[in-house]
Amino acid sequence: MTTADARTPASEQNAQNAQDAPNSEAGKSIGWHKGYVQGSRPDLRVPVRQVHLTNGKDVTLYDTSGPYTDPTIDTDVRRGLTPLRENWIISRGDTEEYAGRPGRPEDDGLKHTSPRGGLRNLDAVFPGRPRQPRRSRDGRPVTQLAYARRGDITPEMEYVAIRENVEPEVVREEIAAGRAVMPVNVNHPEIEPMIIGKRFLVKVNANIGNSAVTSSIEEEVDKMTWATKWGADTVMDLSTGRNIHTTREWILRNAPVPIGTVPLYQALEKVDGRAEELTWDVYKDTVIEQAEQGVDYMTVHAGVRLAYVPLTARRKTGIVSRGGSIMAAWCLAHHKESFLYENFEELCEILATYDVTYSLGDGLRPGSIADANDEAQFAELRTLGELNTVAKRFGVQTMIEGPGHVPMHKIKENIDLQQEICEEAPFYTLGPLTTDVAPAYDHITSGIGAAMIAWWGTAMLCYVTPKEHLGLPNRDDVKTGVITYKIAAHAADLAKGHPGAQDWDDALSDARFEFRWEDQFNLALDPDTAREFHDETLPAEPAKTAHFCSMCGPKFCSMKISHDIRREHGDSQAEIEAGMAEKSREFAAAGNRVYLPIAD
Amino acid sequence: MTTADARTPASEQNAQNAQDAPNSEAGKSIGWHKGYVQGSRPDLRVPVRQVHLTNGKDVTLYDTSGPYTDPTIDTDVRRGLTPLRENWIISRGDTEEYAGRPGRPEDDGLKHTSPRGGLRNLDAVFPGRPRQPRRSRDGRPVTQLAYARRGDITPEMEYVAIRENVEPEVVREEIAAGRAVMPVNVNHPEIEPMIIGKRFLVKVNANIGNSAVTSSIEEEVDKMTWATKWGADTVMDLSTGRNIHTTREWILRNAPVPIGTVPLYQALEKVDGRAEELTWDVYKDTVIEQAEQGVDYMTVHAGVRLAYVPLTARRKTGIVSRGGSIMAAWCLAHHKESFLYENFEELCEILATYDVTYSLGDGLRPGSIADANDEAQFAELRTLGELNTVAKRFGVQTMIEGPGHVPMHKIKENIDLQQEICEEAPFYTLGPLTTDVAPAYDHITSGIGAAMIAWWGTAMLCYVTPKEHLGLPNRDDVKTGVITYKIAAHAADLAKGHPGAQDWDDALSDARFEFRWEDQFNLALDPDTAREFHDETLPAEPAKTAHFCSMCGPKFCSMKISHDIRREHGDSQAEIEAGMAEKSREFAAAGNRVYLPIAD
Repeated sequence: MTTADARTPASEQNAQNAQDAPNSEAGKSIGWHKGYVQGSRPDLRVPVRQVHLTNGKDVTLYDTSGPYTDPTIDTDVRRGLTPLRENWIISRGDTEEYAGRPGRPEDDGLKHTSPRGGLRNLDAVFPGRPRQPRRSRDGRPVTQLAYARRGDITPEMEYVAIRENVEPEVVREEIAAGRAVMPVNVNHPEIEPMIIGKRFLVKVNANIGNSAVTSSIEEEVDKMTWATKWGADTVMDLSTGRNIHTTREWILRNAPVPIGTVPLYQALEKVDGRAEELTWDVYKDTVIEQAEQGVDYMTVHAGVRLAYVPLTARRKTGIVSRGGSIMAAWCLAHHKESFLYENFEELCEILATYDVTYSLGDGLRPGSIADANDEAQFAELRTLGELNTVAKRFGVQTMIEGPGHVPMHKIKENIDLQQEICEEAPFYTLGPLTTDVAPAYDHITSGIGAAMIAWWGTAMLCYVTPKEHLGLPNRDDVKTGVITYKIAAHAADLAKGHPGAQDWDDALSDARFEFRWEDQFNLALDPDTAREFHDETLPAEPAKTAHFCSMCGPKFCSMKISHDIRREHGDSQAEIEAGMAEKSREFAAAGNRVYLPIAD
Repeated sequence: MTTADARTPASEQNAQNAQDAPNSEAGKSIGWHKGYVQGSRPDLRVPVRQVHLTNGKDVTLYDTSGPYTDPTIDTDVRRGLTPLRENWIISRGDTEEYAGRPGRPEDDGLKHTSPRGGLRNLDAVFPGRPRQPRRSRDGRPVTQLAYARRGDITPEMEYVAIRENVEPEVVREEIAAGRAVMPVNVNHPEIEPMIIGKRFLVKVNANIGNSAVTSSIEEEVDKMTWATKWGADTVMDLSTGRNIHTTREWILRNAPVPIGTVPLYQALEKVDGRAEELTWDVYKDTVIEQAEQGVDYMTVHAGVRLAYVPLTARRKTGIVSRGGSIMAAWCLAHHKESFLYENFEELCEILATYDVTYSLGDGLRPGSIADANDEAQFAELRTLGELNTVAKRFGVQTMIEGPGHVPMHKIKENIDLQQEICEEAPFYTLGPLTTDVAPAYDHITSGIGAAMIAWWGTAMLCYVTPKEHLGLPNRDDVKTGVITYKIAAHAADLAKGHPGAQDWDDALSDARFEFRWEDQFNLALDPDTAREFHDETLPAEPAKTAHFCSMCGPKFCSMKISHDIRREHGDSQAEIEAGMAEKSREFAAAGNRVYLPIAD
């Protein structure tokens, strides 16, 4: 299969066109398997999900699940994934390996004097893979933005062009213009490149994060692969507390998707949770630590300036962002301008040497309907616009984070203002939640806002799980959050008229119309639950089929009638109308029986 | 409490203002109970849900749950609810009791010759309550539309005015103009009146329906009360098969909300499921049967005209409405114009004599993204506009049903066109579903579309459950569907700027900001699940509270800081800014500890 043949996200094509990897876990027997689209070089193979329909056709879907769903690849969390980008990075010749920052016990949340020395664990975790970090050889930016600006189409750009079914030049242009980002740290060669920008498919981020009590490191890696299995395009590791460095290492070495973090969280751990003890040096050291590990994008709350804190004093819910609250606390404690804002240019220089992408955090986002679109929020947004310009000057890829809690009629102003102020840099929003009254259902309150803001131009959506405001998401919550947000993202792709997006809906609706139940399940965003719900109430006995599903039965239902007419009487309106009279006779002759669907 | 004091949907007020009914099932001990707002006459008392906050205030919420949540009322499904509207109806003097249509075995889906005589069961069900149906004394309309036009403010209008927190005259005007309907059959005196119109709160309908195999009559009544407990404003009984008449009687006698049906389903049962054997006489007889029972609104697919059926021939998914498919089958079998269309005026005369509201069905609604806004759909809509005008001429209250499957960018055209063509008659839509690819999650795919179309003017939303396209909804599915749609409806109320709508969000967000967890739960759309999710991961130990919720901890979190500043330093910007410096010193003195929320 060539690039030109690949249609993303969904296209019907003959199965033999794809390079197939037989999938034992979830292979042809249950209707789909992993395939690859070959790029212009042997080591550029883009994974796809091939759904095999019972009518002999295949549907090709975008695949975020990584090597874990390819049974020909033997994955092992203690070895990590194959660094497929390594040669691309090395062959550019603009980076070098170096000794790197020495690991310290406090990187893992341990005391300076801890006898355990947390980082010694790392050697035990990845014994067969000693690695040195890599950085720009001469301090100049080694970012996809820098390459795009000078006209280079990198293998990474070709890779995402195949994934998105566009020309590589489109990818280069969008990145060069700052309208899209591709978070690909040179120290995360395991990544399968993806792109975030309004001209591309809407992406979904899932947050995970350890807790000393409730989950182990293995569980966090499992949560990451679980999230990508259901379609998460990126994952943010919001771990705090013990083993934070080691957890991140495990996640990065096993992550086929970009990993984002909020370095401020770890920096705060290093000063024992005392915000006022934070310093630029501690923060900078933490950023370098994480950049050397391979973090692809970092949330930086540099827009929370001292002068904006009083603007939140009369809010219904004050400051609700953890990063925002830490920075506000620091500014208050010292009554000084934010050290992130003051040292932003130096931070840009660091990020540019690893190709870490900025996610400029919205620390003053509204935490309630009452606070939406207020002066605090938009004052910060204007500062993010200013910082976006600075970052671009340093060649750093940049996206902008957005709210939050916003009623529907105030959503569009957010994206319009962000696009204007930030020169169309990708917007990355949390929901927004369209009402405050439904804790336990905030995946839905926010899924509504997410679909709308993505339609209007948001490039990536940060998921919200049912546990938002209430507790830590478990495995089921992660899945529910991802599926809900994939719905929002795909609904937006449709509304934006993204080329090929509707092919997926059409394939599923065709299957529905033709009573190909297995195809419906295999094409569904969540085949497991669709099949389970169906089997729960649909007995095998054919006569009951019609009564126990919400679709028409197999014979003489009106969908079937339309279908027969089309098949038998051609496509022109006149032919169809002529066919109607004939159909009327045939229908009467066959007994005039109408099978009933259950819902109207 | 007087009408003027009641603020709907939410207002904080002193508890002693309300007439309280102590609630043993879910009373003060768990934070809320049933209250009533007294109207201008002793028998006009509007139920509300009083949520008691821990700060001593009350929040009053709209209540659909009926007498079932009032422990002072002894309900019994075999006796039915108190007919609270009976005196209002009788005192108008324009209706009369009459013998009514004799019950027949086939009304209950039994053979003509059945020895069991299904309708004898009815006497056994309601032994203490023999009733004769009521109808217009002289054949003139006894509809709220007719009363509104002649300038009368009925007790029903005052009742909904209190519920909606508007002046009764607004209710009268909206009904008189055809922009709102109040489905209140004179034979359903048990109803607590409610109104459907774009100037009022967005309403939610839940569908239920028996199946000979999967549920009993008692289960259907239970499903109805379960749906209204969670907020369903109306319920459609889509039962088919055996005991259809008896099931409906049970539901109506126990329903505090309007009940809708699709008479075509029962008519089809009477001709043994053979669409071509349907006749106007069988249909008309069924409508009278159901009107005499007290059905408040009926879906009538009179817009599926013979000429439109060929327009569906080239669709992706043909005709997906059960009623639409039955009528299309009839038209095809006879190659004749729809008997519903041809006899529409006579149907209007019948409905007007009971005050049954039309819900003009969209039998040709799109069943897939591909078919959205096509010629078949809009041709039918134009006919519905024509029929709406006819219905109004006969004094019949009328609303218009809408789709279906529609991508986001095509939703607004639906409501705009409907409002234009149907002279602003209330729109009543199923979703719409914004993508086809997520069976098992169609409450979410459709909740997105529902929120948007309601914002733009849809008056009532027909819920979709997770089982849509897959099977029959169970109790959990009904709850999930209702909650999802209450979210969509309330999000729309906020976006429309409905007076008082945001009070509910504000009360919950205040509780969140002040760490009043119990108040958050009690104010939540689903207190049970919110509490359960919270308790799942939040240990009792105070130090862990901050780490195990997604809100800031109890001390020195930034929300708390803003809160303290506001309390201590007044409200003016200058005072707050002055306060900041002081706060900075105080914060440092207190140890500068920042408690961390879990998610950012």
